[in-house]
Amino acid sequence: MTEPAVASSDATNIRASISRDGDDYVINGRKWFSSGAASDRCKLSIVMGVTNPDADRTHQQSMVIVPMDTPGVVIEREPEVFGYQDRGGHPQILFDDVRVPVSNLLGEEGGGFSIAQARLGPGRIHHCMRAIGASERCLDLMIERSHERVAFGKPLAEQGVIREWIADSRIEIEQVRLLVLKTAWMIDNVGTKAARTEIAAIKVAAPNLLTRVADRAIQLFGAAGFTPDFPLAEFYAMGRWLRIADGPDEVHRRSVARAELGRLQG
Amino acid sequence: MTEPAVASSDATNIRASISRDGDDYVINGRKWFSSGAASDRCKLSIVMGVTNPDADRTHQQSMVIVPMDTPGVVIEREPEVFGYQDRGGHPQILFDDVRVPVSNLLGEEGGGFSIAQARLGPGRIHHCMRAIGASERCLDLMIERSHERVAFGKPLAEQGVIREWIADSRIEIEQVRLLVLKTAWMIDNVGTKAARTEIAAIKVAAPNLLTRVADRAIQLFGAAGFTPDFPLAEFYAMGRWLRIADGPDEVHRRSVARAELGRLQG
Amino acid sequence: MTEPAVASSDATNIRASISRDGDDYVINGRKWFSSGAASDRCKLSIVMGVTNPDADRTHQQSMVIVPMDTPGVVIEREPEVFGYQDRGGHPQILFDDVRVPVSNLLGEEGGGFSIAQARLGPGRIHHCMRAIGASERCLDLMIERSHERVAFGKPLAEQGVIREWIADSRIEIEQVRLLVLKTAWMIDNVGTKAARTEIAAIKVAAPNLLTRVADRAIQLFGAAGFTPDFPLAEFYAMGRWLRIADGPDEVHRRSVARAELGRLQG
Amino acid sequence: MTEPAVASSDATNIRASISRDGDDYVINGRKWFSSGAASDRCKLSIVMGVTNPDADRTHQQSMVIVPMDTPGVVIEREPEVFGYQDRGGHPQILFDDVRVPVSNLLGEEGGGFSIAQARLGPGRIHHCMRAIGASERCLDLMIERSHERVAFGKPLAEQGVIREWIADSRIEIEQVRLLVLKTAWMIDNVGTKAARTEIAAIKVAAPNLLTRVADRAIQLFGAAGFTPDFPLAEFYAMGRWLRIADGPDEVHRRSVARAELGRLQG
Repeated sequence: MTEPAVASSDATNIRASISRDGDDYVINGRKWFSSGAASDRCKLSIVMGVTNPDADRTHQQSMVIVPMDTPGVVIEREPEVFGYQDRGGHPQILFDDVRVPVSNLLGEEGGGFSIAQARLGPGRIHHCMRAIGASERCLDLMIERSHERVAFGKPLAEQGVIREWIADSRIEIEQVRLLVLKTAWMIDNVGTKAARTEIAAIKVAAPNLLTRVADRAIQLFGAAGFTPDFPLAEFYAMGRWLRIADGPDEVHRRSVARAELGRLQG
Repeated sequence: MTEPAVASSDATNIRASISRDGDDYVINGRKWFSSGAASDRCKLSIVMGVTNPDADRTHQQSMVIVPMDTPGVVIEREPEVFGYQDRGGHPQILFDDVRVPVSNLLGEEGGGFSIAQARLGPGRIHHCMRAIGASERCLDLMIERSHERVAFGKPLAEQGVIREWIADSRIEIEQVRLLVLKTAWMIDNVGTKAARTEIAAIKVAAPNLLTRVADRAIQLFGAAGFTPDFPLAEFYAMGRWLRIADGPDEVHRRSVARAELGRLQG
Repeated sequence: MTEPAVASSDATNIRASISRDGDDYVINGRKWFSSGAASDRCKLSIVMGVTNPDADRTHQQSMVIVPMDTPGVVIEREPEVFGYQDRGGHPQILFDDVRVPVSNLLGEEGGGFSIAQARLGPGRIHHCMRAIGASERCLDLMIERSHERVAFGKPLAEQGVIREWIADSRIEIEQVRLLVLKTAWMIDNVGTKAARTEIAAIKVAAPNLLTRVADRAIQLFGAAGFTPDFPLAEFYAMGRWLRIADGPDEVHRRSVARAELGRLQG
Repeated sequence: MTEPAVASSDATNIRASISRDGDDYVINGRKWFSSGAASDRCKLSIVMGVTNPDADRTHQQSMVIVPMDTPGVVIEREPEVFGYQDRGGHPQILFDDVRVPVSNLLGEEGGGFSIAQARLGPGRIHHCMRAIGASERCLDLMIERSHERVAFGKPLAEQGVIREWIADSRIEIEQVRLLVLKTAWMIDNVGTKAARTEIAAIKVAAPNLLTRVADRAIQLFGAAGFTPDFPLAEFYAMGRWLRIADGPDEVHRRSVARAELGRLQG
């Protein structure tokens, strides 16, 4: 197909339109990088679009439930992340006069923005928790392989450079894990809003951790590290993807910096 | 299939057997990560194996030409590198009683090791030159995108962090390019053997350069950086693969260290 | 003076001799990098040396209290760390037939090793806590300066690269702080021995953190960052020194790696 | 003294005034970080200040020769860089009604800016060349020490982590050296102006190289690395200072980025 993945017409992503028509909503627009939507276990999607274009900025959008088999829902293409389709891929979906009953509205009309805000924090920490788990798995595999594989006449487990990779991985994982745990505690006890700087911090720290640890593991495994015999390359791709998905590192660093700069005035 | 990619039986890679049988050689063994062999433009392979098991270590192997359509040549599986099949992939090939005429011998029997040694340097610098080119392409794409894409209300080209990525990429590419050029000059003028430390040095420097530059480019492009609309993720995979292929970074660093340590005695 | 700081005669550091002579101990040897000993507030030193050369390896040493004004105690030279004399410097001290009463013995004869072991953990975490505090101070100064200083026509606080330094500093400090707090909790609740991997981990993490944060702060302040008008260069020196003092990074990484490698067998 | 090093009154640095008074120029102002001026071999200084405040921006300044023993020349304080006074220090100098004959003018009145521009490139590459030399010296010392020093039961020269430091240092030095050589060739053959992007590139690359290599050397030497028995800490300080002196890294990266961004339009 010739359509670029990065089109930025008015009908894309959160600018999709959701128009009331009798007892239905009619949806038109295109969403890309709809994570998980290509899985055959994906039966429903929650679509956000503009129902109230004249409302103020935070009350224009609504969310509606759209069964994936509704006529007009078309998976146009399925971009891969380094060749991986992590848990259902990240397909681009066209909504072409898709019609659902008004009872499919989530919450109330114009409430899409606040629903999205409420779930951003929990969504992000969930990604970070997965990144911690994947990092631990990489480290376990590094350790096992270090005992088994011999290079330059002795097991990797006895080689200084390899030991340094293992030590640094453990030291780094522990730090990020504790920051994720603190953030989870804050979400539970003082709320997502009060925890937003911590959420931004782990959203930078955890995906970067995973890419570092998985990269060391791939190097330790050699060419086998790229094969599907081991999950290392796929974990790397997951970490790398998370440095962009749900806000790139730069956006989250900016949030942390703003909070810090606001803490002390000149 | 159940066979692991990382089997290490005696019949694998350079331990494949090449036995004289009348006017033929009969080849048995398995090769993995045979770069390029899955391309339909690949008609011939050069197979290295043991013809003279009782010779000294550097005279046991020979090289023979094997047409890919010879009976017994079986592509068993095609591991991907981060999902990419760079220029013909890196398939695992089984040679099962493959028979070729003795006239297919390259050079003389037992000469495989010295042929391999002779081409290692040129092969490696070729990879480094490709890595320089790919890095330049990433940088060009970063620059073009910086002029076009707007974030936080202004073009990326006017943002400090992005400018730093561009500057560092240029500064780093220039350095590696010059070291590759010097190495090429040495291969031409004083020979591959005299250039072996430089070859080891660029084999570390160039693939690592490409991964850094491509990684910045992907981050700059956002999710689009992973799509096949741009070559960035594939370039990253190429650079990452080269940190392992033809000797991992650690082997080449070891060579450079040995040369340095030998330069001055305690 | 001509004596090198790095002499390694048998009479140095923990190989100093402490010999019983009637009701006295007589101490001979040389200690270098005796942190704090050059302060005029330093009135007593605790000297470790060999009292029982024939005992097993962990029962050869004892500790005795030596007033700094005892005859034979000579401060030979005071090496600086990047020009700083952090809290009393790190002088080299000669003990030349220094005589103290046997009642100055700490604990029992041969008990020096176990006393040293017992205090290593608390000593190290104390350094890490200081490093956290110094990192926080650097970050505060960066923030204040960012509001005040203008470059390229706008305050540093509005520049992307500077904001990234501030954000990364906060993200990194939080992680190390939590790991130090966890380690302190473990020392209190399960004991120094059970916490030894965590102690090794923070001994790597905290000094490296401080060097990174102080380095960013110096860069942000420009030449003023080196002057004694600000504590930045001194903090950098403190962090850099701690990467070597009380065991260099490499020793602690080795401990962490050993614990990890022992966790899973091949 | 109470005056801050970072005062920014109108009478500082290039805003010092140089007023014609009969056959003399009278100089008033304060210069800080006047590198080399505290050396007793420093007999003359070249002072830049404003002679023509109403001229356009590039013709306001002139340069005059001022003997250091002229009345009114006061070295107010001598800031150290990490405690080092690299080749004459970087003192702060007060010019208090300093009077010199008009024949001490360099070039013509208003010509200061263009003289400064002309020497910036050669000045910067000279710093880079020193940084290369210092890096080589650090590497030599690392190698010698690796043969001599034993840790964990074997010479450092046989330990993987140390070998990696040595290899990376060599690989990095070679790259920067070639870029400095290319830049020197360009200054000689196409001129300082045509080489300005290369000059900016090496001004980032060489000081950063030196800090990396010297830092590894210090770590390899342990506490002795900080002592004046070896030049390592002083070399580190020199490299760190050069990341700020004559334009901080950020200014030079900005120049490189501008050149790159101008090379391709969006």
